[in-house]
Amino acid sequence: MSDNPTRTNIEELGEFGLIDKITQSFSAQQPSTMMGVGDDAAIIQPTDEQIVVTSDMLLEGIHFDLAYVPLEHLGYKSVAVNISDIAAMNAIPQQITVNLGLSNRFSVEAVEALYRGIGYACKNYKVDLVGGDTTSSASGLVISVTALGAASSQFITRRNSVYENDIVCVTGDLGAAYLGLQVLAREKQVFLSAPGQQPNLEKYDYVVRRQLRPEARMDIVYELRESEVIPTAMIDISDGLASELFHLSKQSNVGFRIFEENIPIDQQTYETAEEFRLSPITCALNGGEDYELLFTISQADYEKIKHLSDVHSIGYAQPLKNGLQLATKAGQFVDIQAQGWNHFKAADEADDIGSAD
Amino acid sequence: MSDNPTRTNIEELGEFGLIDKITQSFSAQQPSTMMGVGDDAAIIQPTDEQIVVTSDMLLEGIHFDLAYVPLEHLGYKSVAVNISDIAAMNAIPQQITVNLGLSNRFSVEAVEALYRGIGYACKNYKVDLVGGDTTSSASGLVISVTALGAASSQFITRRNSVYENDIVCVTGDLGAAYLGLQVLAREKQVFLSAPGQQPNLEKYDYVVRRQLRPEARMDIVYELRESEVIPTAMIDISDGLASELFHLSKQSNVGFRIFEENIPIDQQTYETAEEFRLSPITCALNGGEDYELLFTISQADYEKIKHLSDVHSIGYAQPLKNGLQLATKAGQFVDIQAQGWNHFKAADEADDIGSAD
Repeated sequence: MSDNPTRTNIEELGEFGLIDKITQSFSAQQPSTMMGVGDDAAIIQPTDEQIVVTSDMLLEGIHFDLAYVPLEHLGYKSVAVNISDIAAMNAIPQQITVNLGLSNRFSVEAVEALYRGIGYACKNYKVDLVGGDTTSSASGLVISVTALGAASSQFITRRNSVYENDIVCVTGDLGAAYLGLQVLAREKQVFLSAPGQQPNLEKYDYVVRRQLRPEARMDIVYELRESEVIPTAMIDISDGLASELFHLSKQSNVGFRIFEENIPIDQQTYETAEEFRLSPITCALNGGEDYELLFTISQADYEKIKHLSDVHSIGYAQPLKNGLQLATKAGQFVDIQAQGWNHFKAADEADDIGSAD
Repeated sequence: MSDNPTRTNIEELGEFGLIDKITQSFSAQQPSTMMGVGDDAAIIQPTDEQIVVTSDMLLEGIHFDLAYVPLEHLGYKSVAVNISDIAAMNAIPQQITVNLGLSNRFSVEAVEALYRGIGYACKNYKVDLVGGDTTSSASGLVISVTALGAASSQFITRRNSVYENDIVCVTGDLGAAYLGLQVLAREKQVFLSAPGQQPNLEKYDYVVRRQLRPEARMDIVYELRESEVIPTAMIDISDGLASELFHLSKQSNVGFRIFEENIPIDQQTYETAEEFRLSPITCALNGGEDYELLFTISQADYEKIKHLSDVHSIGYAQPLKNGLQLATKAGQFVDIQAQGWNHFKAADEADDIGSAD
């Protein structure tokens, strides 16, 4: 922000002035948005579809470090992670509200950058910003987003309806976002010890982008509809594949057998993991923040989706008593450990990721 | 919290354990709640009514000081302020989501106290807690609540539909919450300078309660329906009567004439204001956090609501060119100044409240 030629303090505009300035650039795209920002509440005209609602909060120092996260990307990501939850319900996102807590070190220009990212996400996912609260914060930046979506009840995919022998699919590839975070954290240390040195992130462009600007897989939701497939269950991968498998297992009372060789991992993820002396498969299982979709389908539906280039079948559901197993490339069966992200642990502990094999 | 006989660290339960523990005690009351906590998103079955959605955030050090705000009251208030926005739309609240950021100084017992308050509010306002995000915070406590409500389109009251000659009404009484804050802030200073001394708040019970545990005026929403009156416009008084009048004026292109002698102020508010050498009418106009309703009705509807004991007509809408005027008890007309709460100003400035006369 110090490079910014103009810096306008938020108090010059005040809360209402800031909101006016920001919301000018947002216009409604969804026919269900009857009224957005500017009243006590937004008004939404429902159809006969069911409404899904989800909410996520990103806190400075926990979920992001402004030393290496551009505000525009952060704005985009704060929307995308909520849209990802709507996608995981197999629903179509429609509206969002954004609550923002800003300390006085943020200028109007910084808030505009954040909202530019929010705006890109709104445009990309075709959602309307319909409300929220902007306030000052005594310490760091706080972003809390709520997303509303809609789908006919038969489309909605929950977590409690996996059947034994269902095929387990994941989209995209896994582990990259976690390694992107490792790269960024390392470059920050390098920068702090030698401020003149410019970081060279070209080699890590993919893993860094996966961390900074993840996409919700709405494209997959639309492809599934075109393929006339409704998953038996679906969840988004925010805490790592292992953790999400545990959620499905617990809620559906099934076990899983996952084949290591089928877990999609990008080449750059492999190479970066090697550089950091981390196991690529551990990053894929426990890395988190991939925001890919994990879903199960009946075997009968497999033919309908096997042409989808970014969907990978990685295993199948088995009786609960057989547990959550990883069939390794070496032909062994090992129990999958759920790590997830325990932000409540001390930071140095949380940075450790456990080994699954 | 140091007096608490048991203190369980949140990391002992982890995020999922904490959520499980908390959500056990919440059960759905609304028929529209198809599924609450436990999936990527909650599922809501809409009727043919419109949906209203609002979101507010409370941040430690800005909106509350845990030195004198009990966590149970804080939980209640964080819901009530959102329900107040739903009430201001003349709609019926149905669901809420709660995002929580907790630093490691909060124990499981502290979080339970917070959720107990949230639970009381859910029960009182008949809303279902259907989701949210619980995460750790690098610094203070962060509470972000989103509320959903519903109403037929003809009931919904916006801010842009005041007509000239409409009667202006407020509910309850004004200025008490602001004076409650002054009392609590003073007692904190007394306590800090003489820790052994117990504060005696009995004399200030009403103003303190108005600050710590405000109620959303859903009772008025129901009374208006029973009286078969739909306000022409409505807004809740969160930033002070003056600020809300300015919102209505700006959006409806009308001015207002408000009669000082009609503005409802409680006896304890008068007495406390006098003690603090503040003008009671200034506290009522610019105090904020009253969470009463400000609404306008056509003159024809006045007969239908004049029996409502907690609704007070305080003036009428006039042509915009005549401005926002206060007719003082002395018979003078003075311009009303909007102060509102500018949290972005330095704290000592924000604490000053301007004079309207």
